[in-house]
Amino acid sequence: MSCSFGKNICYTVFGQSHSESIGCVIDGIPAGEKIDMEKLYSFMKRRAPGQDKFSTPRKEADMPSVVSGMLNGVTCGAPICAVIQNTNTRSQDYDKLRNLPRPSHADYPALIRYAGMNDPRGGGNFSGRMTAPLCFAGGLLMQILESKGIEIGAHIRSVSTVYDENIDFTTGSINELKALETKAFPVISDEAGEEMKAEILSARAEGDSVGGIVECVITGVPAGVGDPIFDGIENRLASAIFGIPAVRGIEFGAGFKAAEMRGSEHNDSYCLDGDSVKTKTNNHGGVIGGITSGMPIIFRVAFKPTPSIGKEQTSLNLEIKEEETFSVPGRHDPCIVQRAVPVVQAAAALVIADFLLK
Amino acid sequence: MSCSFGKNICYTVFGQSHSESIGCVIDGIPAGEKIDMEKLYSFMKRRAPGQDKFSTPRKEADMPSVVSGMLNGVTCGAPICAVIQNTNTRSQDYDKLRNLPRPSHADYPALIRYAGMNDPRGGGNFSGRMTAPLCFAGGLLMQILESKGIEIGAHIRSVSTVYDENIDFTTGSINELKALETKAFPVISDEAGEEMKAEILSARAEGDSVGGIVECVITGVPAGVGDPIFDGIENRLASAIFGIPAVRGIEFGAGFKAAEMRGSEHNDSYCLDGDSVKTKTNNHGGVIGGITSGMPIIFRVAFKPTPSIGKEQTSLNLEIKEEETFSVPGRHDPCIVQRAVPVVQAAAALVIADFLLK
Amino acid sequence: MSCSFGKNICYTVFGQSHSESIGCVIDGIPAGEKIDMEKLYSFMKRRAPGQDKFSTPRKEADMPSVVSGMLNGVTCGAPICAVIQNTNTRSQDYDKLRNLPRPSHADYPALIRYAGMNDPRGGGNFSGRMTAPLCFAGGLLMQILESKGIEIGAHIRSVSTVYDENIDFTTGSINELKALETKAFPVISDEAGEEMKAEILSARAEGDSVGGIVECVITGVPAGVGDPIFDGIENRLASAIFGIPAVRGIEFGAGFKAAEMRGSEHNDSYCLDGDSVKTKTNNHGGVIGGITSGMPIIFRVAFKPTPSIGKEQTSLNLEIKEEETFSVPGRHDPCIVQRAVPVVQAAAALVIADFLLK
Amino acid sequence: MSCSFGKNICYTVFGQSHSESIGCVIDGIPAGEKIDMEKLYSFMKRRAPGQDKFSTPRKEADMPSVVSGMLNGVTCGAPICAVIQNTNTRSQDYDKLRNLPRPSHADYPALIRYAGMNDPRGGGNFSGRMTAPLCFAGGLLMQILESKGIEIGAHIRSVSTVYDENIDFTTGSINELKALETKAFPVISDEAGEEMKAEILSARAEGDSVGGIVECVITGVPAGVGDPIFDGIENRLASAIFGIPAVRGIEFGAGFKAAEMRGSEHNDSYCLDGDSVKTKTNNHGGVIGGITSGMPIIFRVAFKPTPSIGKEQTSLNLEIKEEETFSVPGRHDPCIVQRAVPVVQAAAALVIADFLLK
Repeated sequence: MSCSFGKNICYTVFGQSHSESIGCVIDGIPAGEKIDMEKLYSFMKRRAPGQDKFSTPRKEADMPSVVSGMLNGVTCGAPICAVIQNTNTRSQDYDKLRNLPRPSHADYPALIRYAGMNDPRGGGNFSGRMTAPLCFAGGLLMQILESKGIEIGAHIRSVSTVYDENIDFTTGSINELKALETKAFPVISDEAGEEMKAEILSARAEGDSVGGIVECVITGVPAGVGDPIFDGIENRLASAIFGIPAVRGIEFGAGFKAAEMRGSEHNDSYCLDGDSVKTKTNNHGGVIGGITSGMPIIFRVAFKPTPSIGKEQTSLNLEIKEEETFSVPGRHDPCIVQRAVPVVQAAAALVIADFLLK
Repeated sequence: MSCSFGKNICYTVFGQSHSESIGCVIDGIPAGEKIDMEKLYSFMKRRAPGQDKFSTPRKEADMPSVVSGMLNGVTCGAPICAVIQNTNTRSQDYDKLRNLPRPSHADYPALIRYAGMNDPRGGGNFSGRMTAPLCFAGGLLMQILESKGIEIGAHIRSVSTVYDENIDFTTGSINELKALETKAFPVISDEAGEEMKAEILSARAEGDSVGGIVECVITGVPAGVGDPIFDGIENRLASAIFGIPAVRGIEFGAGFKAAEMRGSEHNDSYCLDGDSVKTKTNNHGGVIGGITSGMPIIFRVAFKPTPSIGKEQTSLNLEIKEEETFSVPGRHDPCIVQRAVPVVQAAAALVIADFLLK
Repeated sequence: MSCSFGKNICYTVFGQSHSESIGCVIDGIPAGEKIDMEKLYSFMKRRAPGQDKFSTPRKEADMPSVVSGMLNGVTCGAPICAVIQNTNTRSQDYDKLRNLPRPSHADYPALIRYAGMNDPRGGGNFSGRMTAPLCFAGGLLMQILESKGIEIGAHIRSVSTVYDENIDFTTGSINELKALETKAFPVISDEAGEEMKAEILSARAEGDSVGGIVECVITGVPAGVGDPIFDGIENRLASAIFGIPAVRGIEFGAGFKAAEMRGSEHNDSYCLDGDSVKTKTNNHGGVIGGITSGMPIIFRVAFKPTPSIGKEQTSLNLEIKEEETFSVPGRHDPCIVQRAVPVVQAAAALVIADFLLK
Repeated sequence: MSCSFGKNICYTVFGQSHSESIGCVIDGIPAGEKIDMEKLYSFMKRRAPGQDKFSTPRKEADMPSVVSGMLNGVTCGAPICAVIQNTNTRSQDYDKLRNLPRPSHADYPALIRYAGMNDPRGGGNFSGRMTAPLCFAGGLLMQILESKGIEIGAHIRSVSTVYDENIDFTTGSINELKALETKAFPVISDEAGEEMKAEILSARAEGDSVGGIVECVITGVPAGVGDPIFDGIENRLASAIFGIPAVRGIEFGAGFKAAEMRGSEHNDSYCLDGDSVKTKTNNHGGVIGGITSGMPIIFRVAFKPTPSIGKEQTSLNLEIKEEETFSVPGRHDPCIVQRAVPVVQAAAALVIADFLLK
């Protein structure tokens, strides 16, 4: 179903941007897992808005209440349901936009899909706010996966045309990436980070927005996980990642660059590293034929620039069938890439947990 | 399941490269659809090997026998099963590679996944040959979709660093793309095509291989098709496309380029085209929030260079735990991109049919 | 997944008997459906406990709060989430039973399944209380189905060895059954009803319990709905119905009686009724080969006697590995069959909606 | 999908009674399982027709060719496809029945469902012949399950009103049931068997048919297998069993009889048997709350009398809208219950394998 993901660990999200609450149900979590709630809330705060001048000034508490599935801080095997109250909403901002679908928002497709009965307030269930429950689920699963030696790290690969330092594909630079989790702006190179921030502030100053790329690394997954053809690591990661609003592309290992390489250059030779079989390079990004090789799983996700901009735009007034010039009022993110970093990690956790926590 | 795709139209593939036969079952096809078998076989021939010097000299008949689901050339509502005999196989080519997993092939992941019991002959069920039944299913579904005004076209976007002409995103250049279906080397610019062929022949001469990008366009899908979050057009297209061997990335509309754009540049304004609502540009590639906008659906797929190369490589001999130098014997494709074009169309057809033929 | 049901309309239930709350998410409900909340609450009250001396004296408000998926009383296409607070819980009742699994309760299977980490309070997520959200979902869907001419009625077919009047299979006696919805004890024959009540009170007086059968009828489903083999009306109804605690069997049309009939007696001849094709008898219960015939769909569901009884029983103390005599304290139902009637209707509504509301 | 069953082991069936061939694909079988083909064919022969005077005189070879998924008699992890040629078909038998739907056959529902384009020859894909591939899959899985200590036995519980001896619910009488596998007419009491045969021959002599009940027992499944609510052992067994044509009901343990029992009588007390936890009685049939208790899983399946009878019947001629008297020509089973015994075992094997062979 549209709002569910996973075969063994099934995540179901509910809510709209301005409904009474949003939340999720996670079915299939093994019983007996102790969850560190403080750590989970810290993880969730990384995507929360209103923390700095690079994102929207909206403030959302966004902290969930766990209403089922746990007993004394430990999972009990029943589905976990977490509910987040929607509080700081200002529905009036959106009233005048009902007949004027915002460019590159889901307004128009949703209008047709739901015959005009969809909830337009704050983007309804197409809102980026729907990633808050995803971070709850993903953060929880990351704790369970970590206890099994699996780490999921990520950084801002780029904002606009400014790129962070390359990671090392053979190690996945996992230690460097995990160290970023305490940084508000998760980049390896602080110099690149400053340039990115400058890009964001420049866009913001012009009432504009910028896009960027998030790169994610998963280590500790043994070789032999996944299935061929339609149920491989890539199929499922792609399927989960496109569940995040604003994603326009995903690539694994060398990705689109592989298309420009020769076989002799792209092929990753097997070798021995102690007792373990490794590859000398990792252009394959840890997955071949849908199945893990034991090398770090590496993928990158392209985010489009936030469609809500202060700048004047035109759209079609559907009522009077005429184009109108307007600007989107309200509080918007000039860049969502920094907030998307934990969201990508969370989506990756759903997939890896689905494969491993049977 | 790993070998199945689709909720309403369910495609299941079976077989290994050198098993007695390969084939597929397609469940959910509406009854009463007349299928033009000649046209279907023509479509399938576009991916068949052995047709020119740019692909492998292996010759495979690859023409399926439909053993169920049709009565007098018309679908009857029961699952359609098509079986293709495996004939021109030379299993001895692969015998010595059992302990020497080929770089960037699925040999090693499959060995671990199946505890050494997988079928190594010709790549087993990881072989590119498994895309023949996909073309049967996709070609059949394309006929049904065409009768409903839906066209799926594709071209070679690039081979190595040579790029074909840009398509027009607002029309999807669908007429130009459909016209390519009779060309052995489906590019819009014949000049670019010649350069691509030169690249392939140069790689081949060196016992090497090249990768490339396929671009696919779907027109005629009305606005409002798809679902938010995990069951959108992008999720499902990505999920199907990663079912094709050698795919390393997928992007929609402006794709990874969107990450470098500003919102004001990327946003697609709505306008009126006759009585229809359109967008002036189509950076969104026909899908927003998982749901179609009515504009052409546009995506690109990156293919890695064929991992089987004649050039010397090293790998790890798993038995003696030592690296060995070797070259892959047998008949290989220096480039699979031209053969992948109908395969991408076929995978797209699975997805669109799954959404529309309920 | 274990807590989800449905392909097109997907119902997901969460909560445990004594967790903070219980509830459900319903994904796939078409947008634009007006829901009469008062009517829905009335339907839910039919399964609520504490209403008379024939069921448990526990009182539960059980009335849900709809936190998402509706806007001004109308469905908006986003998943509907309903949350019911758990209030009137007395967890101490169950404390001493942790090591003494109650006979014919899920205590022991759950203990093994969840390695001792399951929530034992009030039966955890195996509690009959989990049918309250099912009634929310089913009641809501029944309103939508009714607007399309589909009625779902049910009655107590039997309690212990006392049987209600036979329904007419060709009409499904649907008018009589719908008229029962305002009765606290839904039987067609009040005389049989009085006998049933006497059975229940007699069992109760002895600290014992009784089982019974619920018979359900669905009318208005046109011929041709359903699919052969694994996705027929019977497969899915059975699958949903066994999601209700205490169910031990399900049969369609003539059911187990059909096994004692001859073909000439069981076969239902086709005939014309006005312009409609009907069958003269309805031993097939409205479904043949998984697909509806247009006749009323009829099935019966067997409920075991409530396992919680006041009478002395023995069980095995798992800690000391010795049998112990005990009686289950707390407030229990001497019979759940009357409360199960709307629950069966609700489960049927899930299935029919899943087939028809695509 | 309609023709597929299973989450971990996925069985897909294809074919129609008179199509070129029928068969199945089984995805998810672990690699490395050696299959005894002779034993498998023997199992399949138990459902094959034409073996005695109690079933149809049609003779079908029915022996499958395994075209993929095995290498040297051992599973290789790729999907197993088995194809059975349809040979001994006489399509002309059915020609005159196109406009005259046979009572209690799927003819009429299928006609509506597939808008008149379904394959009517021999019942199309509604034919009992579709259970031949099921027996292939089930027989294969039973071999794998047996190697893990799991036995699936079954007997004819009744034909018409003649009942076989009761089994012992606490042991499941598994040894007695397994011993029946070499008997053409699998009953425990030969005396009851003779009476059943007399019933069948008497019906046959009158051009009539009889129904009956199959009882199935599964032993060796440890406690703790299954999931609550919608994904329990009962839900999935019921879902698979209703995939067999002519099934009208299923019940577990005491089944419908439980509805007439008191709690004190129905409850199964826990006790110690050596080191194992058992129950003294097994009215629960090995499953509580969807999860196994470790006791034998016991269920019964009601089969209606074969609808094809030689006796005169009436039906509606859909073309001329008038009732007609006719009798079904061709070769029919006066009773399918004896042939259904291995089919029920096979369906049970699908379910148990799906739970255990992850």
